[in-house]
Amino acid sequence: MLVDLRSDTVTKPTRAMREAMFRADVGDDVYGEDPSVNELEAKAARLLGHEAGLFAPSGSMTNQVAIQLLVSPGEELLLDSESHILAHEVGAAAVIGGISTRSWPSADGKLDVDLVERFVHESLAYHTVATRAIAVENTHNRGGGTVIGIEELRRLRAMADERGLLLHLDGARLWNAHVASGVPLAEYGRLFDTVSLCLSKGLGAPVGSVLVSSRERVERARSIRKRMGGGMRQAGFLAAAGIHALDHHISRLADDHIRARRLAEALEPYGITSAAAVATNIVLLRRTGLDRLAEVASAQGVRISVLGRDHGRLLTHLDVDDDGVEHTIKVLKSLLC
Amino acid sequence: MLVDLRSDTVTKPTRAMREAMFRADVGDDVYGEDPSVNELEAKAARLLGHEAGLFAPSGSMTNQVAIQLLVSPGEELLLDSESHILAHEVGAAAVIGGISTRSWPSADGKLDVDLVERFVHESLAYHTVATRAIAVENTHNRGGGTVIGIEELRRLRAMADERGLLLHLDGARLWNAHVASGVPLAEYGRLFDTVSLCLSKGLGAPVGSVLVSSRERVERARSIRKRMGGGMRQAGFLAAAGIHALDHHISRLADDHIRARRLAEALEPYGITSAAAVATNIVLLRRTGLDRLAEVASAQGVRISVLGRDHGRLLTHLDVDDDGVEHTIKVLKSLLC
Amino acid sequence: MLVDLRSDTVTKPTRAMREAMFRADVGDDVYGEDPSVNELEAKAARLLGHEAGLFAPSGSMTNQVAIQLLVSPGEELLLDSESHILAHEVGAAAVIGGISTRSWPSADGKLDVDLVERFVHESLAYHTVATRAIAVENTHNRGGGTVIGIEELRRLRAMADERGLLLHLDGARLWNAHVASGVPLAEYGRLFDTVSLCLSKGLGAPVGSVLVSSRERVERARSIRKRMGGGMRQAGFLAAAGIHALDHHISRLADDHIRARRLAEALEPYGITSAAAVATNIVLLRRTGLDRLAEVASAQGVRISVLGRDHGRLLTHLDVDDDGVEHTIKVLKSLLC
Amino acid sequence: MLVDLRSDTVTKPTRAMREAMFRADVGDDVYGEDPSVNELEAKAARLLGHEAGLFAPSGSMTNQVAIQLLVSPGEELLLDSESHILAHEVGAAAVIGGISTRSWPSADGKLDVDLVERFVHESLAYHTVATRAIAVENTHNRGGGTVIGIEELRRLRAMADERGLLLHLDGARLWNAHVASGVPLAEYGRLFDTVSLCLSKGLGAPVGSVLVSSRERVERARSIRKRMGGGMRQAGFLAAAGIHALDHHISRLADDHIRARRLAEALEPYGITSAAAVATNIVLLRRTGLDRLAEVASAQGVRISVLGRDHGRLLTHLDVDDDGVEHTIKVLKSLLC
Repeated sequence: MLVDLRSDTVTKPTRAMREAMFRADVGDDVYGEDPSVNELEAKAARLLGHEAGLFAPSGSMTNQVAIQLLVSPGEELLLDSESHILAHEVGAAAVIGGISTRSWPSADGKLDVDLVERFVHESLAYHTVATRAIAVENTHNRGGGTVIGIEELRRLRAMADERGLLLHLDGARLWNAHVASGVPLAEYGRLFDTVSLCLSKGLGAPVGSVLVSSRERVERARSIRKRMGGGMRQAGFLAAAGIHALDHHISRLADDHIRARRLAEALEPYGITSAAAVATNIVLLRRTGLDRLAEVASAQGVRISVLGRDHGRLLTHLDVDDDGVEHTIKVLKSLLC
Repeated sequence: MLVDLRSDTVTKPTRAMREAMFRADVGDDVYGEDPSVNELEAKAARLLGHEAGLFAPSGSMTNQVAIQLLVSPGEELLLDSESHILAHEVGAAAVIGGISTRSWPSADGKLDVDLVERFVHESLAYHTVATRAIAVENTHNRGGGTVIGIEELRRLRAMADERGLLLHLDGARLWNAHVASGVPLAEYGRLFDTVSLCLSKGLGAPVGSVLVSSRERVERARSIRKRMGGGMRQAGFLAAAGIHALDHHISRLADDHIRARRLAEALEPYGITSAAAVATNIVLLRRTGLDRLAEVASAQGVRISVLGRDHGRLLTHLDVDDDGVEHTIKVLKSLLC
Repeated sequence: MLVDLRSDTVTKPTRAMREAMFRADVGDDVYGEDPSVNELEAKAARLLGHEAGLFAPSGSMTNQVAIQLLVSPGEELLLDSESHILAHEVGAAAVIGGISTRSWPSADGKLDVDLVERFVHESLAYHTVATRAIAVENTHNRGGGTVIGIEELRRLRAMADERGLLLHLDGARLWNAHVASGVPLAEYGRLFDTVSLCLSKGLGAPVGSVLVSSRERVERARSIRKRMGGGMRQAGFLAAAGIHALDHHISRLADDHIRARRLAEALEPYGITSAAAVATNIVLLRRTGLDRLAEVASAQGVRISVLGRDHGRLLTHLDVDDDGVEHTIKVLKSLLC
Repeated sequence: MLVDLRSDTVTKPTRAMREAMFRADVGDDVYGEDPSVNELEAKAARLLGHEAGLFAPSGSMTNQVAIQLLVSPGEELLLDSESHILAHEVGAAAVIGGISTRSWPSADGKLDVDLVERFVHESLAYHTVATRAIAVENTHNRGGGTVIGIEELRRLRAMADERGLLLHLDGARLWNAHVASGVPLAEYGRLFDTVSLCLSKGLGAPVGSVLVSSRERVERARSIRKRMGGGMRQAGFLAAAGIHALDHHISRLADDHIRARRLAEALEPYGITSAAAVATNIVLLRRTGLDRLAEVASAQGVRISVLGRDHGRLLTHLDVDDDGVEHTIKVLKSLLC
């Protein structure tokens, strides 16, 4: 038995999803003529209450396109210091967008709008770098799948409006926040100027993300996507999988959350994690010698993710069932004793 | 009947290709674990006589990753003034790579190494921008599918070696050059430090390109691809289509070439094109009022590409058969009289 | 009487400095042949215990050249969220250097190495942005002229060495830190890989800054400076003023510090500032309606700097004597009653 | 006797210029308060018939600021392949501006508008890189001090207007073109959207260039100059030298032209140059082993510039008088026999 808990990106399409791909109606999306892509983009936009959508090969690309839409070279994007955009996108904001970034400290990915506001820089003279936009991540990856409450997000919007700032949501796992909180997707959507959504994480589609925003912004986004090399031809195969995922794989994320909680509760006594901190499908691990543990566990069919000298994580997803969870618990317990 | 001659990117996968995709063995390619992607990368590298390959969502991305591998920010890439890299990649070389570009004039995409050499700038002092690499495109898109002869490419390599320069080949349509000239792919491959190859043009795969180079460069390329947002997860579906294309769709490009020649010969009497100039699957059109012509032809089921005020092109491909060619001739003749 | 306390950059050269400029021996510095520039660069390097120096038209340029030397495009520079590099250099780190920045929160510009260390990101996989260098500012401008203690800087160096990180010192006002703390300049210098020093602030030279580092880095710095447009010809006139400033204007900064303290003590009772917070030549002001106050004060010959809706500052310098201080106190007191 | 003909940038200020600097009225130019800088900017703008001017430390900076004003990241600047902007500014257009460049071949720096027009790319779809601006250099440095005729420049303006393009003039040595042709500076000025003018070449000022353009563009230019590190404080010393140069050193360039012609005529019989090609103050040299020649000449007090394996140049300027010319001729003749 192999249980791969390194990431929710490792899922393989279900038979039904493969069939949806096989039957997909496709065209040349660089010309805007792929019906499946167009359908997916419209569907995602509708779900989030936005005017238009844009499909791209990765969440890094939709994030980077979005912030380039909101922030011009030399202007500032404010975001938390453990955000995916800063930690895992290979410096794209600076290299490609010329976007200046300042960050606030992040405790477990939670958002504190009063804290954020103290970091905003106003425009003074022509040489001051003024804050132009703020990005938040929900759920928060490095924070451990943290759900940011809708009330705090509403306060963020109010503050942003007062200060004349734009807002981007890195919603790679917004589906998990939505399922965990019960807040409708459109409720989140209407608070942000741009939203990036991944189909290839918990939703189980093979490839791709969607950016949603206004029609005008999405039009400009096409050009930025092309510059970044994200113009694909018959991308409808991937989009068909995405449509299938939106239709069938959102509500089932609740199962992933239950399994993550089960994992954390079983492992908590060993001092390696906190069950109370598990809000969605991510279980953070803290322990010295985690890399050794990971190696041994892997030999016994349990793959976990090591993120630093002493921390790592487990992610539940479509390809981890109850048996996988119990096997994982058995293996890790035996190693932690 | 609809004959779409705007580009060879508009092809839709054959039934056999769809089935290959449906059966594809996949994994998470960001972790390097997608067997189909790995197979495609190895296959493409082998065909070109290189050590390693990297799959990416577009030819723009493989071109841009390649030139970033060869040329550091502030250094110079020399290329022809009608190259795809300069004309159609949304300024990515400058924006993303900080690469300085100078260009030589291009008559029909042909290569004249003596001319090119006169454009090379040596390094003098710390403030001179020295030429670091040269890029050529074969076949040449805007030049009209021009095949660059292997002898001239060998002279280019010799000059580059003497001058200490690196060479990139934009081989988006290298397959067409190979079929038209009979020169083995590896013969082209060994003359260049990096080669970009498209699967979604004449070869008929839905999405993707492969960069081939040395193992060390491809390793660095992974990071650049990730920065550009090209890290895909279960990309094996696309790779499986690519493998199928490499196995079944190369030699048949000869048919596209014959059909392009047939189109050009039939239209030449109307002064709109030159049959002698057709070397592969592209027929350039020169005529005032071409946009009007394109509009009327489209209403009669023939779609052609308009590239400027008075020029355009026809491309033959997998989805254009002999009937399509004859229909096109009939429609265009009636409009050109 | 006009007392300009907006910045210590507003000083005008003394008669003696003008004479030094008038007599300056000059040459073409782009060719490295300006004797006065060469002398200044060597002198600054010697003072800081570094191998070589590079003169440039501004402190923004020496900062930006330095961080480009230490951090490649896409790598990370860690610095405090109120640093001059992030707040006042027009986004150059991102636009020109493609440098990714994350920041720690800054209380009054003080340095807490334990806090900083928690922000360091290690390199994990090819897509993680690893911290490459850390920049600190001493004295700290927005923090209010804060002096960072040599002990904390030594701890920073030790942590950086352990983590394999490089260190840049934005020492625009390092002279003030040196005079206030009594720590030799070379003591500071030996803890950093690059140091940027301004001649046109407290030292009273008209234009210019010096970057000091290793010979190898300064050699590369020449090229970066040229790209940024900082290659000047007979810059020896400016350098001669800088040499004069180094010879005659360092120790007198103690007077500026005494005057800043005098200002703060006199104004503290009005709730607008804290005398205890004044460590060097900057007095921070906090009060609503500061812009109105600044306007009225200006009409009475006292110019103060407004930095935001409710804060501003006073800076003492070469052109503010005891009479100027007393006049300022009289005017501000009358307006604050 | 030392005659330095490497460049016209090596001139040292005259006694009168030094005195003008000594007496200069200065202020903090970052605040826009340096009266000498303001006077110089206004004077240069007036001479060229533009609304406003901006002083900067180098011609590379004024060129780069100008093209960033005209061309956004990812858009295209068209210019000749031997232009200073492409060959000698360390790749700044790409690195700092993200500006895509294509170039036309340049025979001796001459301008052929019909040729240029064939290189213009129109905007087609969102992925085509459309030409946005054209830059020309007058006199042309690498072309050998070539003067571009006013008639051809008028044709360029007409073509640009018809095509919706903007025009930049790299007028580092426009003074020489003006003196050689008799065309008023404002005649040149009114044909371009931005003009860059150097004070530190033939005019003999120690440091600096001026960008002239519309008031709106110069306002934006202040921010770009600051980002590039070109914000200087009491820059009025340099500006005072520039004002003196404009008042006293323009018409005397005619002497430099006569001396350059004299040099070329004397050396022509040795097959190393062409007197007919000398239009202003630059004499191009073509000969194998020029580096050796330069070395030996230098030992005899004559310094010439070597630009490549077999070419170099002589420049006449303020510090080369008739005796210097004759000495140079004597030395070079003896070495060429």
